[in-house]
Amino acid sequence: MSPARNGKPTLAVVGATGAVGTVMLDLLSTREDVWGEIRLVASARSAGKKLVVRGEEVEVVALSPECFDGVDVAMFDVPDEVSKEWAPIAVERGAIAVDNSGAFRMDADVPLVVPEVNPAAARRRPRGIISNPNCTTLSMIVAMGALHAEYNLQALVVASYQAASGAGQPGIDALREQISKVAGSDTLGTQPGDVRRAIGELGPFPAPLALNVVPWAGSLKEDGWSSEELKVRNESRKILGLPDLRVSATCVRVPVITTHSLAVHATFEREVTVDRAQAILRDAPGVVLVDDPANGEFPTPADVVGTDPTWVGRVRRAIDDPHSLDLFLCGDNLRKGAALNTAQIAELLAEELAEG
Amino acid sequence: MSPARNGKPTLAVVGATGAVGTVMLDLLSTREDVWGEIRLVASARSAGKKLVVRGEEVEVVALSPECFDGVDVAMFDVPDEVSKEWAPIAVERGAIAVDNSGAFRMDADVPLVVPEVNPAAARRRPRGIISNPNCTTLSMIVAMGALHAEYNLQALVVASYQAASGAGQPGIDALREQISKVAGSDTLGTQPGDVRRAIGELGPFPAPLALNVVPWAGSLKEDGWSSEELKVRNESRKILGLPDLRVSATCVRVPVITTHSLAVHATFEREVTVDRAQAILRDAPGVVLVDDPANGEFPTPADVVGTDPTWVGRVRRAIDDPHSLDLFLCGDNLRKGAALNTAQIAELLAEELAEG
Repeated sequence: MSPARNGKPTLAVVGATGAVGTVMLDLLSTREDVWGEIRLVASARSAGKKLVVRGEEVEVVALSPECFDGVDVAMFDVPDEVSKEWAPIAVERGAIAVDNSGAFRMDADVPLVVPEVNPAAARRRPRGIISNPNCTTLSMIVAMGALHAEYNLQALVVASYQAASGAGQPGIDALREQISKVAGSDTLGTQPGDVRRAIGELGPFPAPLALNVVPWAGSLKEDGWSSEELKVRNESRKILGLPDLRVSATCVRVPVITTHSLAVHATFEREVTVDRAQAILRDAPGVVLVDDPANGEFPTPADVVGTDPTWVGRVRRAIDDPHSLDLFLCGDNLRKGAALNTAQIAELLAEELAEG
Repeated sequence: MSPARNGKPTLAVVGATGAVGTVMLDLLSTREDVWGEIRLVASARSAGKKLVVRGEEVEVVALSPECFDGVDVAMFDVPDEVSKEWAPIAVERGAIAVDNSGAFRMDADVPLVVPEVNPAAARRRPRGIISNPNCTTLSMIVAMGALHAEYNLQALVVASYQAASGAGQPGIDALREQISKVAGSDTLGTQPGDVRRAIGELGPFPAPLALNVVPWAGSLKEDGWSSEELKVRNESRKILGLPDLRVSATCVRVPVITTHSLAVHATFEREVTVDRAQAILRDAPGVVLVDDPANGEFPTPADVVGTDPTWVGRVRRAIDDPHSLDLFLCGDNLRKGAALNTAQIAELLAEELAEG
């Protein structure tokens, strides 16, 4: 363990200038402060830039092996290939790496951690790396973990309503620009392709996103599945420790800025009741139940964006199957879906380091 | 049978001035012309208005018992309570009623007809009324009927992405106005409730629809289910003749003008293959398969709005269950979801009347 100011560990934030990095600096400024030095790291292009964290300006340094010297915990919010190269370098230099890319998530020697669900997994990290799950998986896994503890989960059918910011700042910019182009029209969205023609440049999405939904996120994998859909399956299995969990996901992008929503049909070994399921969700750390449709109460992404918890509503027992629940969940993909869960994992490590 | 001009039957269109009525007049002007007189009927408020159908101006007459005299087939695109009162009056006056409201759909003596799936059901109509299914059910049922014929359907898990026009013209107007209010902002959609505050008046939806999705459509029924979700279950069972079909639906409104989309997880008695399922869908009347994600090809609502077929893509076999398929479907809720299916049913009746 490196020398740390005030006896507190040193944190490096790699990718400090990105969409998730920006939320991370906000979180580090508002959560309980467990860190000594916080070092901000980015590509050489952003080096020298000054960002505010914990109320103080900090100069961004360029990514280099030396920037990890003296670092206890290094968070990575960078593309897969950058993590793949640099997380092991951070580890060599003495840091524990917490990585939010897809580079290590399915590595058997890298734990995939959600602190509310499997915190103990963070202690076994043979490569010195801990992975943070994909944002879509994170939008439901805290709630599903709580229900699994009671009912024993067997199968998930998931349909997502994913926000533009899942594609980073270019996704947000593209959606805002597309919305400006369709605003004010009395006819767009009524003839085949009229929205596509009005929008022109699609940005990072494979079809128009304004006045549309796009049944595609990620890259094409085997048998017609998208990478995003396979992540939901494989990461849910790993986090819950259920290698035989049956999962079918359809991932769809919607014209929402930030916060992913999911419609989930979950089947359990034990019979479920709505009252008990609601009580479990009401008591689960990190989950807020908003479920009173008679009074118009259910979560929507625009109402919960910018908040930390997983919001759950529309809890119903399947009419034809007393072992299945249908739910609707919302979670901010930049917070719990990325920066917040990474911060929580890093805090677990800070606690472990303090224990000595 | 009443006397008909040129030996062709007389049609009444009740609700001719509404969102569905407008599409109906367009369809009646472009489909093969099987009708003699076409009488346009609406509320007293709209009587005297002139609308164009088949290239000719026709004056709208006020709804009255007499307006059904001499009518062979009367289509109703009006609220449930208007249909409930007036469809039986049309029948008394000698017409066969084809009703697109929810008033009679689950009546055991009223067939619920999708011409591609159960055309024979239209012949047994003890009350003289035939019902047209709900638009959400219609967005998938032609494709599911084709797959059922081969594989024997046992269960459906459905998540919808429903368009604003499902709430009629007020829904379209509300979405367009909301989009104008959020366009041009660089910050809306990032803080809890900021979109709600910017939008003010919600229109017919229980939450903002611009930059949002709303997990609610219809009215509250038993055990937390919405009327729209129960319609998907009950109507699918009736149309397919499968009283034990297991169905769980979550209905969600999205900021799309027109065309409903559905993510469907369908489980069959027989094992499925993607190749065979794609071939079935490619050959099914009323269905178009667009399924080549490697080349960015899948249906989206903005690309298929204004067209007649059900568009299907993203056909995958569930990784953990060789009896299940995952699909994404789009269908114009004002055309096949309402006016077109009603027109098709009426044409079945015109054919039957011509047979004598």
